[in-house]
Amino acid sequence: MKALVWHDRRCVKIEDVPEPPDPGPGQVKIEVVWCGICGTDLHEYLGGPLYIPVDEPHPVTGVQAPVILGHEVSGNVIATGPDVSRVKVGDRVALCPIIGCLECKWCLSGQMHICPNIAFLGSSWSGGGFAQYLNVHDYMCYVLPDAVSYEVGALVEPFSATVRAADQGQIAPGKTVAVVGAGPMGLMTLQASRFAGAEEIIVLEIAARRQQLARDCGATHIVDPSREDALAAVRKLTGGDGADIVFECVGAPETGMLAGRLAAPSGRIVVVGVFEEPALFDYKDLVYGGKTLVGTMGGYGFYEQAIRVMASGQFYGDALISSKISLDNIISDGFDALINHKAEHVKILVSSA
Amino acid sequence: MKALVWHDRRCVKIEDVPEPPDPGPGQVKIEVVWCGICGTDLHEYLGGPLYIPVDEPHPVTGVQAPVILGHEVSGNVIATGPDVSRVKVGDRVALCPIIGCLECKWCLSGQMHICPNIAFLGSSWSGGGFAQYLNVHDYMCYVLPDAVSYEVGALVEPFSATVRAADQGQIAPGKTVAVVGAGPMGLMTLQASRFAGAEEIIVLEIAARRQQLARDCGATHIVDPSREDALAAVRKLTGGDGADIVFECVGAPETGMLAGRLAAPSGRIVVVGVFEEPALFDYKDLVYGGKTLVGTMGGYGFYEQAIRVMASGQFYGDALISSKISLDNIISDGFDALINHKAEHVKILVSSA
Repeated sequence: MKALVWHDRRCVKIEDVPEPPDPGPGQVKIEVVWCGICGTDLHEYLGGPLYIPVDEPHPVTGVQAPVILGHEVSGNVIATGPDVSRVKVGDRVALCPIIGCLECKWCLSGQMHICPNIAFLGSSWSGGGFAQYLNVHDYMCYVLPDAVSYEVGALVEPFSATVRAADQGQIAPGKTVAVVGAGPMGLMTLQASRFAGAEEIIVLEIAARRQQLARDCGATHIVDPSREDALAAVRKLTGGDGADIVFECVGAPETGMLAGRLAAPSGRIVVVGVFEEPALFDYKDLVYGGKTLVGTMGGYGFYEQAIRVMASGQFYGDALISSKISLDNIISDGFDALINHKAEHVKILVSSA
Repeated sequence: MKALVWHDRRCVKIEDVPEPPDPGPGQVKIEVVWCGICGTDLHEYLGGPLYIPVDEPHPVTGVQAPVILGHEVSGNVIATGPDVSRVKVGDRVALCPIIGCLECKWCLSGQMHICPNIAFLGSSWSGGGFAQYLNVHDYMCYVLPDAVSYEVGALVEPFSATVRAADQGQIAPGKTVAVVGAGPMGLMTLQASRFAGAEEIIVLEIAARRQQLARDCGATHIVDPSREDALAAVRKLTGGDGADIVFECVGAPETGMLAGRLAAPSGRIVVVGVFEEPALFDYKDLVYGGKTLVGTMGGYGFYEQAIRVMASGQFYGDALISSKISLDNIISDGFDALINHKAEHVKILVSSA
């Protein structure tokens, strides 16, 4: 089968690789229908390795580069190994990419997402979503109801991460929200905030297309940091204080510090963006304002909630999918398109069929 | 009277200034007995202005540089203005330096310490502790019981800030604590953590004298970052994970990022140190570990608790006072001594009598 294989920074190739074998105990074979390109994939491509084991095998999975990329997967269960009861052949599923050691105190207390030896589908696992098939642990599968299409199903992974982020933001009635960046994560964080009860949501975004999508997703105010002083604008929109809850959804060198400063006294800043390198932070402002900065990792524990919201019909998903492409063209029409023409794209889905 | 007046960065002078007038409504005249030199005073001296209004008068107090420094005050109430019932002439008191607008939602909800227009005794107020007298609002006064000496009373301000920090750390039985830096704030944070129930407390410190004081204050482990890899050492001491709660008590360019990395998955990092400038932070590590970074500002709301602990006899205070000097010598024996021979000093108290 064909797969997109990461070898090194700026070195990914479409290759012929062996199809996964019959699934072992507790495992499931998945036929991929759609796999979304995530910002993390681009980070691994341009600035990696971030999560890909290069120097030695991953301590839990034994996997080491080269690896197959892709972790925002929807597909079908086509075979089940022994001791699998969670799903059955024919189930339509979305996948959670998190693989824990299942032995540490975090894994044993429902916090597999912060397992110190965590592995990920698509970076430290035998398979990835940019391929026709992969085997996964059964606990990584979440059944999609009929009301959730395969396309929207491929958004379950990022959307559940934003549902978790909204939970970490501790949104409450009357609280103001600012979202830094209206890429796919920002647009879904905005929606997750709205579903959590936020009524006033300010989105910071420079690209016109993404500004419009933010409006469509429920933003009440758009601030364009290329045209105005974003901090002054957010303070003005919030009566002078800043936003009670700020979501950092970019991960650029300057946006972490900006997100911190946008928060009101005693406000919470939730970091969703992927930062390749350490970046500046205004510690004095955090202290002075009694603010709290929270890191949130993936959507583990929030999949069912995310899928229920999607099935309810309230989720604005299809419009976030800016193109659907074939695996053969993933580098030119996927990675390079997102890197060179970011403002024109949002979520790109890839089919390996 | 003589006072230490801040004019500009690296420009502070002992000057003759007018004695404060009879106190106005709700105000109290204080005779200073001791005033401690705080890291913030050094930051204002070397890298300021941080909190001193220079370009325009402070919006609440109307004060503008030049200002009298000093805010860690113990002293006596020697006169009270109209409408003062909180204290009476002859009371021995410690002062809380925080002055709020008393009109904003923060001041009106018991959170004066995050008033967006906050002012401080010793930086944006008509008087400071490095002088013989000053007038303050009555709400800034906390009566000292007989069991708390004037010397220890001058530590109420910084100690209450560390009691607040320990509260923000959410210390609980069995949690491990790391304290970055055993200067005065680190040594008091260490004690506040112990009083809050922490049993395993790791202190990172390079100076031998401060290492010994940390042991005397109850540290269970000392890590010397100049001799070993601090991150590896803390992980080893905590079974591999890092500390559940980390207190950053330095405010240097590299210690914020280090503090973040020292924290275990789902750990809390409490920033106590004063950072003159934005500094690097490892956002990816925060996200990856699901960690929380908290800023905590002063000790407002924790004064009574801090004074009760001091009065109980458990507080290890006198040993933290490395010298007691006269205002006449504050620059040479106080500021310059702390800047040039930091490792030999801890807390220096100043008398203007």
